Amino acid sequence: MDDGFLADFIAMTRVPAPLRTAIAAFPGSRIREVSESAFGRPGIIPLWFGESDRETPGFIRDACGRALAEGKTFYTPGRGIPELRQALAEYLTKLHGPQVAVDRITVAASGVSAIMMVMETLVDPGDNVVLAVPLWPNCADSIAMLGAEPRRVALRPNHVGWVLDLDQLFDACDHRTRALFLNSPGNPTGWMMPAEQIAEVLAFCRRKQIWLITDEVYDRIVYGRNTAPSVLDIAGPDDPVIAINSFSKSWCMTGWRLGWVVAPPGYGEALAKVQEFNTSGANTMAQHAGIAALKQGEPFIKEIVEQYGRARDLVVQRLGGMARVRLVRPEAAFYAFFQVDGMNDSLSFAKRLVAETKVGLAPGIAFGPEGEGWLRLCFAASLGKLSEALDRLAPNLS
Amino acid sequence: MDDGFLADFIAMTRVPAPLRTAIAAFPGSRIREVSESAFGRPGIIPLWFGESDRETPGFIRDACGRALAEGKTFYTPGRGIPELRQALAEYLTKLHGPQVAVDRITVAASGVSAIMMVMETLVDPGDNVVLAVPLWPNCADSIAMLGAEPRRVALRPNHVGWVLDLDQLFDACDHRTRALFLNSPGNPTGWMMPAEQIAEVLAFCRRKQIWLITDEVYDRIVYGRNTAPSVLDIAGPDDPVIAINSFSKSWCMTGWRLGWVVAPPGYGEALAKVQEFNTSGANTMAQHAGIAALKQGEPFIKEIVEQYGRARDLVVQRLGGMARVRLVRPEAAFYAFFQVDGMNDSLSFAKRLVAETKVGLAPGIAFGPEGEGWLRLCFAASLGKLSEALDRLAPNLS
Repeated sequence: MDDGFLADFIAMTRVPAPLRTAIAAFPGSRIREVSESAFGRPGIIPLWFGESDRETPGFIRDACGRALAEGKTFYTPGRGIPELRQALAEYLTKLHGPQVAVDRITVAASGVSAIMMVMETLVDPGDNVVLAVPLWPNCADSIAMLGAEPRRVALRPNHVGWVLDLDQLFDACDHRTRALFLNSPGNPTGWMMPAEQIAEVLAFCRRKQIWLITDEVYDRIVYGRNTAPSVLDIAGPDDPVIAINSFSKSWCMTGWRLGWVVAPPGYGEALAKVQEFNTSGANTMAQHAGIAALKQGEPFIKEIVEQYGRARDLVVQRLGGMARVRLVRPEAAFYAFFQVDGMNDSLSFAKRLVAETKVGLAPGIAFGPEGEGWLRLCFAASLGKLSEALDRLAPNLS
Repeated sequence: MDDGFLADFIAMTRVPAPLRTAIAAFPGSRIREVSESAFGRPGIIPLWFGESDRETPGFIRDACGRALAEGKTFYTPGRGIPELRQALAEYLTKLHGPQVAVDRITVAASGVSAIMMVMETLVDPGDNVVLAVPLWPNCADSIAMLGAEPRRVALRPNHVGWVLDLDQLFDACDHRTRALFLNSPGNPTGWMMPAEQIAEVLAFCRRKQIWLITDEVYDRIVYGRNTAPSVLDIAGPDDPVIAINSFSKSWCMTGWRLGWVVAPPGYGEALAKVQEFNTSGANTMAQHAGIAALKQGEPFIKEIVEQYGRARDLVVQRLGGMARVRLVRPEAAFYAFFQVDGMNDSLSFAKRLVAETKVGLAPGIAFGPEGEGWLRLCFAASLGKLSEALDRLAPNLS
């Protein structure tokens, strides 16, 4: 670049030497932008983040405490401690049916770290990954950061839920498509992909030798069933499948930064390589806590899902009664994602809402241009808190 | 790529769909390759990793336990909890003199995660970063993963220590150089860059608008002084300086995955953006533990450095007496990095050593081609353990 441009660029970014121009194009988290607009104000009901208001349960914290007492404070193997990988293999096999062997499992320092690492192993500049959207933003950002193209295929709401058009999905693929990325149950939509569609997508990916990446972090936050349909119900170790998951949602462990990947055995080596220079692995004590979550966590999952189910009923009923709101009942996850009549700047609207009502929601634009005009409310909160929030929101949404 | 190549590539990588070709070129950790060659064998003395054999001290583990008991299990702000950033600002200001304000500090999920994120903000494909080597491998790998070029300038050993030729360093820079990366005190060499050289490099970087990235994770593992010379002793918030550090070495917290970055205030926004899709931040309880480390950790640092100092004397004296060993006395950090006469395949040699002597060392090739013919011994271990290891090694090195 010539000196004039360089000087302009440095002035623009307010830093003393150049950054990548691509970095300036990332908007940053619009959810954090809303939450920071209300920083320090008392009395906010925060329903903006994808996080339950419940602490991690005691039996998991106790397991961490035991690991601490036993001095388990050292580096772990790059792909995770063997006991956790073994516990994951047993948990997943029980959940899905087909055996998931330990050699397919890699522990990661969060679900998002897993996504970043997977993209690093798959995409070169000029490649593309096809995503079903709206979608939480980190996935598209990680692809763009690598100089690849996130190619967006929009889910469509109808009167019963969200629908993915598989013809559109497949038509979006070309010879530079390295992966399909599907987040089901989906954030922010609550979409849950039917088993028949999963089978069809898997067949397509097998035939085309395109990776199928599934982000399954909401797989246990489902109503009237034990777990969401998953590609792990039907895929084996030789399939081009990378299933990503996290402890954050099922066991209220957002702060622990612990996730995992299921992939073909031969892929583990690639993941181990990139994990070295990404994080060198997950927090050691968190890994020990994760074992307790997997082995003793079923009653807790049942309890929180019952709570979220009641919260879903309340939120859908109340929001559905507000004149400006158009709502698709979420099939899974813990979000109400709704359109507001006459609103076309969700970032400003969400900032105004928190300023006027002290209720924090996420702006739809945070999930891509398809989300503009929408808002996301996380209902993983007590009924009392939700009821109060809905009372406060009603005047602005009616 | 044509179908024949694709089929070959898939067969080669033993995965059901293509990976980036660049991934195959990463060797993976040669240290782990040696350690895995001895997996499960009893009686190994492991001196291969960059890790003390001491647990994290009790007062830090207690702080984690308190955070757990208080239910601090939620997401934190992207740049870290305010109390930790404040504690870091106070710690660094006290250590270095010039004020380090909170707005320059970002907490990261390990030092290596910080390095990865910093590279993501700085280098496009075709850019380069100039590194003083031999160097731990993750830094060059993160640059190469992004399609940029790690440009290596070799430190040279002489009779008193390692020396960096600044003319060579500056001559390696061109118009695509985005940063200089200096790890002082250095792993594996124990090199400690003199204050005069740091000043000269800073002046060069200011003039050229090239970032100076310093990896200072061994800054407190120094002998006969409180801390190593640092660019933070002389740089201000408007300088093109990114100083990276970690809790791993100074407070024996390798398993916690906690690090930090000091950079110009305007840079924090870029780092926050990439942190979102890299890890979304560090483990919450670890952040609370980090505050205790900073505020109460000085006696512990003094104690371990005294121990490592005695260990250094023992190891230098014993290794120095072995006929095949050529050793540069380390000025800092906790490694003996030594050349073995007649040895030119450090990976095989290290594997043979652990098989024959049950002493685990790191092969020099792990730190780049400049390290071939060398071995690294981590002496952050008890004198008894080190003495036994040296007894076992002597026949192979004499």
